[in-house]
Amino acid sequence: TENITFFHESTKLGVGDDAAVFDHGSDYSLVSTDMLVEGVHFDLSYTPLKHLGYKAAMVNFSDIYAMGGLPKQIVVGLALSNRFPVEAIEELYEGIRLACQRHEVDLVGGDTTSSTSGLIISITAMGAVAKDALVKRSGAQAKDLIVVSGDLGGAYMGLQLLEREKQVYLEHPTIQPDLAGHEYVLERQLKPEARRDIIKMLNEMEVQPTSMIDISDGLSSELLHLSKASGLGCHIFENKIPLDPDVIRLSEIFKINPITAALNGGEDYELLFTIAQADYDKIKHNPNLTPIGYMTEASAGCVITLNEGTDVALKAQGFNHMTDSAS
Amino acid sequence: TENITFFHESTKLGVGDDAAVFDHGSDYSLVSTDMLVEGVHFDLSYTPLKHLGYKAAMVNFSDIYAMGGLPKQIVVGLALSNRFPVEAIEELYEGIRLACQRHEVDLVGGDTTSSTSGLIISITAMGAVAKDALVKRSGAQAKDLIVVSGDLGGAYMGLQLLEREKQVYLEHPTIQPDLAGHEYVLERQLKPEARRDIIKMLNEMEVQPTSMIDISDGLSSELLHLSKASGLGCHIFENKIPLDPDVIRLSEIFKINPITAALNGGEDYELLFTIAQADYDKIKHNPNLTPIGYMTEASAGCVITLNEGTDVALKAQGFNHMTDSAS
Repeated sequence: TENITFFHESTKLGVGDDAAVFDHGSDYSLVSTDMLVEGVHFDLSYTPLKHLGYKAAMVNFSDIYAMGGLPKQIVVGLALSNRFPVEAIEELYEGIRLACQRHEVDLVGGDTTSSTSGLIISITAMGAVAKDALVKRSGAQAKDLIVVSGDLGGAYMGLQLLEREKQVYLEHPTIQPDLAGHEYVLERQLKPEARRDIIKMLNEMEVQPTSMIDISDGLSSELLHLSKASGLGCHIFENKIPLDPDVIRLSEIFKINPITAALNGGEDYELLFTIAQADYDKIKHNPNLTPIGYMTEASAGCVITLNEGTDVALKAQGFNHMTDSAS
Repeated sequence: TENITFFHESTKLGVGDDAAVFDHGSDYSLVSTDMLVEGVHFDLSYTPLKHLGYKAAMVNFSDIYAMGGLPKQIVVGLALSNRFPVEAIEELYEGIRLACQRHEVDLVGGDTTSSTSGLIISITAMGAVAKDALVKRSGAQAKDLIVVSGDLGGAYMGLQLLEREKQVYLEHPTIQPDLAGHEYVLERQLKPEARRDIIKMLNEMEVQPTSMIDISDGLSSELLHLSKASGLGCHIFENKIPLDPDVIRLSEIFKINPITAALNGGEDYELLFTIAQADYDKIKHNPNLTPIGYMTEASAGCVITLNEGTDVALKAQGFNHMTDSAS
């Protein structure tokens, strides 16, 4: 471990002692932890281990970005049964290291142990944020604009595609999977990218979000979290929700309303945040950022205006009205 | 989570947002992670969940103490199958919270998820240490004294006892377990206590260890780690190794040499450290600290002088000579 070079001067000592050591200046430190369990969070029959390592790291980076901070260090816990060869651990770590490389994060420690069945990955990310740049879930004000980065529903559609091809393969092992043309949604599912670029961009544009969360469980549930933490309601518009053309194409194939994928699908790892109306001019021509509605008083509840014109209450799980009426 | 009071002014924000936030001053931050897997690290047939939570926290605190620091915050990852009722999670957390209470640590976040089988606990502890008080594994000098806290082999003997009673129970379910008089070794196995007191004591005595490690895998393997990291050899003496009377009693019952339990047993979570000879007077009458030998030049290797007078090379796994000759 003597030859490892770290990104951060604050990283004084990595793996090889009892604990990693780092030196934070006067910023706030941030820490986030997530566990991914085989058979629950991933299916190794269609998930390359390198992608899995990459995603496990991204999930944690995303939590740090959602506080307005930058991840600096991670520690990795792995438990795996003896059906995994040593090369499997190496592949996983290759993905983790690639994610760290791209996001300038130091891998400072870990613990690999045996499991009686399956693979479990536990990653804890530490980061830092300037004290005046910290963004909590609870800071939104009524009339603040609700903004999302990127587009939504892709990871969910990617999952539908992978599950379909797995079923085809199980029934007809000689048929080759038909994934051509769907690279975008597959990558959204298998190799998501946490939005470091958005945090940097907001910083450069001098836009300080009033509240923020990352979209791991679907837009609906994250909006409800933000609203509850801020003691407010919210109002969004179906026709504003950003969707990739392939999500719309696949929604017809799978008979799933694309808005349902965006609201309830999850795993997009985009950022959902609120900004003061005064900041609208700074973001309005930015192709990475889409205003989808605004915060309201708590008494108004959390509402989506559908394209057909009706208002429907947002629910955390299963937007049934829309699923049921999906063409 | 609004009513939670934190020990550390540095803990700004706990569970409930994307990441915990804390404010470290000018100290070094420390981080350590450990995973405990059912069927590998613990057996729920004789491990109360509350004790398990307590131990899982202690294992991580111990890593922070072994750097000379104090743990400040932990995050907890749990994966458990649906055979565990909600009360099981509550019991586990009760043990974790008790450990945190006693060691003045803030539980700042967590992630609970499902598992396809069994229980997995992943804890990451963060701590801090004054820059001039950081103790690495690599700082020992030749002729430094080797010191251990407390006594060794107890956790291993406790495990033998629990395994024996489990077998008796499996064969004769009506026989009550016979554990009376062995409370000490059972507690060493089921509810170990990380040595916060030793770190505080060394500080008060103005003893700065030159190197340190916690004893999780047995004295042999930890001594080899310290020696390798410091580029030295070591020489210890069988008759100096501190043993509890119950460890000696049980060693006769189980036909296990008590020194084998100390050298290879592990899980004692005592501290093993080196000090300059000039500091000997400060520790010599302390009943919590036992000098067991000294560091040597690397060329001398790592050696134990047995009571019978012969010198034997220390090995990381299985001290076979002694096991074989156990009475």
